[in-house]
Amino acid sequence: MLRPSGALLRRARQRWELQPPALRRRARIDQLGGLRGAVWGRALRCASTEAAAARPPTAIMMLNLGGPGSQEEVEPFLRRLFSDKEIIELPSPEWFQRDYFGPLLAKRRTPSIQAQYSELPFGGGSPIKYYTEEQGKAMCRHLDRMSPESAPHKFYVSFRYASPLTSDALEAMARDGVERAVVFTQYMQFSCATTGSSLNEVWRQLRELDMLDRFEWSVIDRWPTHPGLVESFAASIQQGLEMFEEAERDDVVLLFSAHSLPMAVVDRGDPYPQEVGATVGRVMEELGLCNSYRLVWQSKVGPAKWLGMQTDEALEVRRLLPCPAP
Amino acid sequence: MLRPSGALLRRARQRWELQPPALRRRARIDQLGGLRGAVWGRALRCASTEAAAARPPTAIMMLNLGGPGSQEEVEPFLRRLFSDKEIIELPSPEWFQRDYFGPLLAKRRTPSIQAQYSELPFGGGSPIKYYTEEQGKAMCRHLDRMSPESAPHKFYVSFRYASPLTSDALEAMARDGVERAVVFTQYMQFSCATTGSSLNEVWRQLRELDMLDRFEWSVIDRWPTHPGLVESFAASIQQGLEMFEEAERDDVVLLFSAHSLPMAVVDRGDPYPQEVGATVGRVMEELGLCNSYRLVWQSKVGPAKWLGMQTDEALEVRRLLPCPAP
Repeated sequence: MLRPSGALLRRARQRWELQPPALRRRARIDQLGGLRGAVWGRALRCASTEAAAARPPTAIMMLNLGGPGSQEEVEPFLRRLFSDKEIIELPSPEWFQRDYFGPLLAKRRTPSIQAQYSELPFGGGSPIKYYTEEQGKAMCRHLDRMSPESAPHKFYVSFRYASPLTSDALEAMARDGVERAVVFTQYMQFSCATTGSSLNEVWRQLRELDMLDRFEWSVIDRWPTHPGLVESFAASIQQGLEMFEEAERDDVVLLFSAHSLPMAVVDRGDPYPQEVGATVGRVMEELGLCNSYRLVWQSKVGPAKWLGMQTDEALEVRRLLPCPAP
Repeated sequence: MLRPSGALLRRARQRWELQPPALRRRARIDQLGGLRGAVWGRALRCASTEAAAARPPTAIMMLNLGGPGSQEEVEPFLRRLFSDKEIIELPSPEWFQRDYFGPLLAKRRTPSIQAQYSELPFGGGSPIKYYTEEQGKAMCRHLDRMSPESAPHKFYVSFRYASPLTSDALEAMARDGVERAVVFTQYMQFSCATTGSSLNEVWRQLRELDMLDRFEWSVIDRWPTHPGLVESFAASIQQGLEMFEEAERDDVVLLFSAHSLPMAVVDRGDPYPQEVGATVGRVMEELGLCNSYRLVWQSKVGPAKWLGMQTDEALEVRRLLPCPAP
């Protein structure tokens, strides 16, 4: 994530907060009850498997930033990223960033990013699509068992800057005759620059594709302290701790490293730092506060001020166990 | 809190982390089990009330910043505050801050602070001592019932910058023949500038009073998600919400306003922002995520950069319910 824009991010946040209260309230309920609550709702009632076969699927839109699938897709990916007013702060008008700044910066950065992806074992691109699809398949199998009333369930990957884009997902949903859809952000914590940008893109594309009344929506806009998330982090940290000699295990400091945000975004009241703090707190409770720990912030870019302590500075301390980014 | 010092705060933190692991571990257990675990420990075993009457009390040291008790105490209070290297960042040597900067700044600020306190209905001073003593009395009554094995319990108020000071508390404990003591910070979340400074003062005074081996210690160094704390915040927010008309209650945005920290302290890895985030997360869960909410930060002073969003900026939004500072 680069420097998100001032006035525009504020507008993005306001736009999201101006969603109908009913929608926001349902999102909150979903956050508590998990996917199940979302899929139930006041939706499909009949329960037989035959009926399910004849029914259109309940759609789960999996929102994420995405990544280029191949070397060729690197440049369009960067172009979309650098053109997003909700991610990069430019005082210039929208057309300038979309038609000049974004494409130019993307062209300049493409070779170095291509080189980095070509070092990974994923065909010159990012593995994010592969893993999202694997997760989507497992999720739908689980939902079909858990909630036959709303089966069949079908996932639609919806990336913000890579294929399949939001518009691809919405068009596929329309082709499948979807009536009931769940927006399910893959970002655990809400930031205007990530979930906010993705949700705004959903509303924008619905308008552009003339689908505003096409689907009945639920929204899962964050899940920072979902028990499944907390347990999974705790289990993986436990595994990491077991790699240390028993004698020194108690002295290991756990280092939770989350993606940082520019201070301009933090100072605007972005909820992300608080929600990351809540995730870390719950994971440490799940672990019985077994070790000392710190929450630090990674991936600062550019000259602007970002939220610290920076991970690389924290790594100067010895005997640390870097934890999965919460 | 003013601008805490760079190298010195780092040293304070390191000093704290260099406490013997057994002590740190016990502090962690205490945080989970609350006071009860701390008071039990491997301490006093006999359970009869007669025995309790003959025993020295189990001491609970209640650490806090403190406040002047009267108009006369304002200047000494400010002098101690401005002389604390762990609170105010000065590149100068310690003697300069203690003997010149602290006293001079205190003298200059005393009239305006005196005027502010004289507007309050507490005899020209701060009510913090009165309320801490009331809480101490209730706590000890509760502990005597809860844990007769370690009764009688006696609290010792231990303020960092006002009377009774840490040394007053330690001397009173020695006079009472205390053998077993619990350090119980009244700061819910740990910051190097608050709890850290107070704990360092305890170790410093123990050394100066030649009492390093005098007491057996437990430490409660933070309690950001203690169920009692979470329930009490939630109940008071619920009361606040009921002051709104039912029709508009759902649209109220809850504003959690916590004391801010200079970014220099945040960037050094102070655990306070994460722990405040955890408190807010748990309170909102306790409330069933009933309303939108934001965590914002108050009481910035001086020209340096502090953690935002600042509370006064957030207050521009309408229909907010300011919540007790977590």
